[in-house]
Amino acid sequence: MSDGGIVRIFDTTMRDGEQAARINLNTGEKVQIARALERLNVDIIEAGFPASSKGDFDAVANVAAEVRIPIIAGLARTKEGDITSAGEALRGAARSRIHTFIATSPIHMEYKLKMKPDDVLKELERGVKLAVSITPDVEFSAEDASRSDINFLVEVFTLAIESGATTLNIPDTVGYAMPHEFEEFCRAIITRVNKPDVIWSVHCHNDLGLGVANSLAAVRGGARQVECTINGLGERAGNASMEEIVMCLRTRKDHFGADTKIDTTKFYPTSKLVSGLTGVPVQPNKAIVGINAFAHEAGIHQHGMLCNRATYEIMTPESVGAPGTDLHLGKHSGRHAFNERVETLGYQLTTEQSASAFEYFKELCDKKKDVSDGDIEAFLFDRILRLTPEIRYELRDFTVTIGSGGKPTASITLAHDGTETTEASVGNGPVDAAYKAILKILPFQPELVEFHIRATSELADALGEAHVILRYKEIKAQGRGASTDIIEATMRAYLEAVNRLYSVAAAREVAI
Amino acid sequence: MSDGGIVRIFDTTMRDGEQAARINLNTGEKVQIARALERLNVDIIEAGFPASSKGDFDAVANVAAEVRIPIIAGLARTKEGDITSAGEALRGAARSRIHTFIATSPIHMEYKLKMKPDDVLKELERGVKLAVSITPDVEFSAEDASRSDINFLVEVFTLAIESGATTLNIPDTVGYAMPHEFEEFCRAIITRVNKPDVIWSVHCHNDLGLGVANSLAAVRGGARQVECTINGLGERAGNASMEEIVMCLRTRKDHFGADTKIDTTKFYPTSKLVSGLTGVPVQPNKAIVGINAFAHEAGIHQHGMLCNRATYEIMTPESVGAPGTDLHLGKHSGRHAFNERVETLGYQLTTEQSASAFEYFKELCDKKKDVSDGDIEAFLFDRILRLTPEIRYELRDFTVTIGSGGKPTASITLAHDGTETTEASVGNGPVDAAYKAILKILPFQPELVEFHIRATSELADALGEAHVILRYKEIKAQGRGASTDIIEATMRAYLEAVNRLYSVAAAREVAI
Repeated sequence: MSDGGIVRIFDTTMRDGEQAARINLNTGEKVQIARALERLNVDIIEAGFPASSKGDFDAVANVAAEVRIPIIAGLARTKEGDITSAGEALRGAARSRIHTFIATSPIHMEYKLKMKPDDVLKELERGVKLAVSITPDVEFSAEDASRSDINFLVEVFTLAIESGATTLNIPDTVGYAMPHEFEEFCRAIITRVNKPDVIWSVHCHNDLGLGVANSLAAVRGGARQVECTINGLGERAGNASMEEIVMCLRTRKDHFGADTKIDTTKFYPTSKLVSGLTGVPVQPNKAIVGINAFAHEAGIHQHGMLCNRATYEIMTPESVGAPGTDLHLGKHSGRHAFNERVETLGYQLTTEQSASAFEYFKELCDKKKDVSDGDIEAFLFDRILRLTPEIRYELRDFTVTIGSGGKPTASITLAHDGTETTEASVGNGPVDAAYKAILKILPFQPELVEFHIRATSELADALGEAHVILRYKEIKAQGRGASTDIIEATMRAYLEAVNRLYSVAAAREVAI
Repeated sequence: MSDGGIVRIFDTTMRDGEQAARINLNTGEKVQIARALERLNVDIIEAGFPASSKGDFDAVANVAAEVRIPIIAGLARTKEGDITSAGEALRGAARSRIHTFIATSPIHMEYKLKMKPDDVLKELERGVKLAVSITPDVEFSAEDASRSDINFLVEVFTLAIESGATTLNIPDTVGYAMPHEFEEFCRAIITRVNKPDVIWSVHCHNDLGLGVANSLAAVRGGARQVECTINGLGERAGNASMEEIVMCLRTRKDHFGADTKIDTTKFYPTSKLVSGLTGVPVQPNKAIVGINAFAHEAGIHQHGMLCNRATYEIMTPESVGAPGTDLHLGKHSGRHAFNERVETLGYQLTTEQSASAFEYFKELCDKKKDVSDGDIEAFLFDRILRLTPEIRYELRDFTVTIGSGGKPTASITLAHDGTETTEASVGNGPVDAAYKAILKILPFQPELVEFHIRATSELADALGEAHVILRYKEIKAQGRGASTDIIEATMRAYLEAVNRLYSVAAAREVAI
């Protein structure tokens, strides 16, 4: 396949995707995801929007320093401050890209930018030229392109290229396009601008469920870069889902005459990692990475599968890294079997992490007979992978009693600054009682804004996982916990969020 | 718009969708969903596959008897027994349709059917003629059409029409088609068969994320019926999602020159109902009905929305029935406010159901200050909407104690046949301890095959919801429970599944 047949995959899970998670990933978490994307072999990683916050700036800088193979991109409006900030954040990258954008649709120019088309042209020329003075790899996006006037877009993109941009992005910002018209739209722009040396890109949203179809239509129309996210994360109904786009191109190479360089066997673990770190679940019937994506339930289908898998299967679970069977480990599993399982699940641990993970695994084996993949992932997230902030409050001791005879009651002992404090409370259920007892100990009263619990597997002694988001003044922080005791998991999650609130508060100079 | 501009919506949530839920809906639940689909104004409801089980037969018969406006369809292979069974199940319908199918792709004919093309033609002719002798409304599907030879398909569909079928369905059974080719494929078949009085239909699966795009491509190619499901439920990665197809056609009427008769403001509550009854969750970034579908998180987007909603919004939340704000009710809310909220959430209760719901609501108000929409839905599902089977085992009393000092311990008292039995157990967590205590009381040992827990809202005193599936010998049953105490909810769910196992066992003549 000639290079004209290669579609570049531009991942924006950590920029557009993160926006939707309602919470910021910290630097350690972003590096973790970036490493997984590197193993997938994506071409470009958009690591954040450096001018938007100090946290985002640091995350982009850290990803740029640590992940060396893919191009690392930072988003920037055409404003000078945005572009210089992106340039600084990307300074340590092996290969960097500044991705700058301005809106070009009548409604965005009039109501949001409050600018005339001519001013938009001047602004983008200035912005792109500034970006090119910092790095040779500059991408320009015309925000809300699918609702823009095509004559104006031809002018916009021509000017952007003349100013030095080498990748030109046509976003369907609000998910309004239909595949047939979007294909023609992209083809018309590409033909009329007529610059064979640039790469055309699209960025499609999924508001009407067509993010993937529109991205593929654009490939037919001449696009050779697609912006997308793992699990289709992103603003509102999300961005086009990377795993679906890539598997369409791979499965139907005959139709597109184009393919990507992605190692598709890494999709399943990468999907799990992103879902675990962002707290955004994947529905069972999600294409490619949903737990039912390869399940055949109907009797007729099962009969067909036994006769010949190809009757109902157009790709194998193995091709996307979906584990065949949920292998259970137990107390007789050694270090080698454990490490191998962790690797199959898609995690790359440092030697140190690996050692503590195995230690915790052995502890868990004393508590329960079978340790499932879900259990392993839960404790990797809870105890190994996350960079926990300084521990201000730690759970030392607790008792919770519930029963039809009386009100749920909790007593909790927390350690803080070398002293232990115990409080007790009743509540409308064990979690409420425990949180009320914790609140009696804390010197401030955060608000609980999200609260999720789930079990890691179908077993009654599965690990329970809890995910909470707390807000205090204008800052938010998340916490997760996992334990065979779901109530303990909710306490662990709450306290982690409290400890994270302290570190976010320190970074933002908010008094707690 | 002339009638040529009407696309009929054929819902298969209770047939293809149910296959994926891993559990059968009971008759009461199917009637509940069918009523919601009637309120949505779908044209055809496929209520089940009558020959596949007695439960499915009864469900189709009950839906046919109780839901009078949409056409009620039953699925049948071309076999005589399947077709007569469908005919019997549909006997009480105001308007009935038999939907018969046979596979036409080389791989399905050779490996699954083990039939030659000529035999397939004879079989379909016989099947369609038999169906037409029972009801004048007969639909014929060529299973795996998208991988079939087009010349053979033209022959197949021509014969089906000559045998009396009036709706012809072109399924993309394995989700292999690409929109551009599928549009041409449908157009070519329709043109070559050239029978202007029939309705052409498609049925698209979502294995590569293109179920919706392929359905729309087929509408462009001439299809005037689309088979789809609520939430995109269905085998593997599911079927094309009804809410996405309908909102594409509605939002982009200009592009398609076609529309449906659907009342889109009922989508959100119908989605919740289907998710609640099947236990299959909807991911937050699901288009149209995900909880984030209308959320604008980025600062830039929020700024734009304040200037003019149309900057980032192509349809309003109200147009799909998404509740603007999660209104909380409390002890001062009267019967009127409560009933109004229940209706806004999309539930239609009988007078009797409404009275017990209000009674339970007042009880709940004594336990917690704010009752959220999630709480109301949870207790409607747990205590009002489901037709519970005969109660064999009932929870009378329980105490559960957990704490860092010792092993989680539960004591449980169940009532059965007028006597009470108490047992206690320790376990790896409170749920495990409780289930072990219950198992000591039960005379048989069901296996836990699925176990899910979740919180209804972001509050610590939210209702906890549990969903379990138990298996005993070859039968399975689900149970759900809701309570402010998550541990109590898991016990309620377990016992409901036990009680349901008894009624499934009785129907299937399995000894417990």
